[in-house]
Amino acid sequence: MELPIAPIGRIIKNAGAERVSDDAREALAEALEERGEKIAEEAVKLAKHAGRKTVKKDDIKLAVKRMEL
Amino acid sequence: MELPIAPIGRIIKNAGAERVSDDAREALAEALEERGEKIAEEAVKLAKHAGRKTVKKDDIKLAVKRMEL
Repeated sequence: MELPIAPIGRIIKNAGAERVSDDAREALAEALEERGEKIAEEAVKLAKHAGRKTVKKDDIKLAVKRMEL
Repeated sequence: MELPIAPIGRIIKNAGAERVSDDAREALAEALEERGEKIAEEAVKLAKHAGRKTVKKDDIKLAVKRMEL
């Protein structure tokens, strides 16, 4: 796992949680990491398709849009 | 923003990117944070509905499933 747990806990607190269990933090971190990996894989494909070695903002944006279909 | 940028950059690198622009990292961080907020808001509602003050793993799991519908 790349994503740290503490900021994820703050996101849940900011959403109005009075208390948050440790495994709730971990579950959200895992869900976001998994989604991040999928978006990133799609963005890498899009960058390669465009003949670039650098993944750019537009690759991410387009990958996010595709995930939302 | 709660999510740090560096781990997001590593997620993109792990997906096979040779190089990643700074604004690509930021775009993915924003997308994941936004989704995290939506899941967290739903999880808080589910916990309250169950008469709990603590957001638990199952609230997150059910909220994630609903987002995927």
